[in-house]
Amino acid sequence: MAIATQPQLTLDDFLKSPETEPASDFINGEIIQKPMPQGEHSLLQATLCETINGIARSKKIAYALPELRCTFGGASIVPDVAMFCWDRIPKTSSGRIANRVEIHPDWVIEILSPDQKLKKVLSKLLHCSRNGTELGWLINPEDESVLEIFPGQRVELYEAANKLPILEGIELELTVEQIFGWLSLS
Amino acid sequence: MAIATQPQLTLDDFLKSPETEPASDFINGEIIQKPMPQGEHSLLQATLCETINGIARSKKIAYALPELRCTFGGASIVPDVAMFCWDRIPKTSSGRIANRVEIHPDWVIEILSPDQKLKKVLSKLLHCSRNGTELGWLINPEDESVLEIFPGQRVELYEAANKLPILEGIELELTVEQIFGWLSLS
Repeated sequence: MAIATQPQLTLDDFLKSPETEPASDFINGEIIQKPMPQGEHSLLQATLCETINGIARSKKIAYALPELRCTFGGASIVPDVAMFCWDRIPKTSSGRIANRVEIHPDWVIEILSPDQKLKKVLSKLLHCSRNGTELGWLINPEDESVLEIFPGQRVELYEAANKLPILEGIELELTVEQIFGWLSLS
Repeated sequence: MAIATQPQLTLDDFLKSPETEPASDFINGEIIQKPMPQGEHSLLQATLCETINGIARSKKIAYALPELRCTFGGASIVPDVAMFCWDRIPKTSSGRIANRVEIHPDWVIEILSPDQKLKKVLSKLLHCSRNGTELGWLINPEDESVLEIFPGQRVELYEAANKLPILEGIELELTVEQIFGWLSLS
């Protein structure tokens, strides 16, 4: 007996549909809208881009970009921060940054929002890891930890005064408490 | 200038202190009391032990035990489920199960409770992985997923109809939805 199934949305269909606000990810055949960013999320996202770019952009080592749609490996995702090594930044023939990014970032950072499903965020990071992303960070403001994902989907958990492993070639030293320290405005 | 620090509690000090209810873990020099078990947690813990033992205990392959204190690698933890391959079950000279377990389990299962810090649970599972545990499961009832931790701290995320990798030698087939299906009593 044939079982009636809903026609599955394809990546092409998804890419043709209008962008939403906040952006939506298309992963494992499913559309998942990102949560509306809140204070902590927004501050961490901005400060991470600033900090990484402060060290890597002027020397043309790498570029960290917030909310950039990246389509690769059968999914189309919008990481909180996507970092590309300089040579891998997708460019147009005139040397400007391309609007469509169809390669994996080298480093992906996700910041867990309250009420955001851990599974959805982890599944984005594992998709990146499986498709060539060297380093993934899952920042959890709730318990002040950072879970890093290395090649081969190996994970390590960092907290407090732990120094966070950074992509090779980027001379950045950051501890977990430094990152969460940014949240204190006093 | 000398900085005054609190004397750090040692593993020996911890092991001499009375057990708490719920049990406490001693890990990374810190005492962390487990959350008071709730309905879902309790049912999953019991049914997992039952299911694993139903297949592995009668054939003397392995034994799954709930709330067993295991002291190894400088920590003393009480996994929700600790499973030992038959030959590794700690025994007294008369062949009874030993009361003090000073080796790592072969398979450790943790069930995330509401409000439990993800960091604490992950850090227990990674401690096990680093110290020889072949397989770790982090069951998250909230988003109905299972994160498995393999040797080398490699992780993989499972959901819905995904078949869950099991320790070799245990002939068990389980999908993620089967596990969460146990929670429906109708």
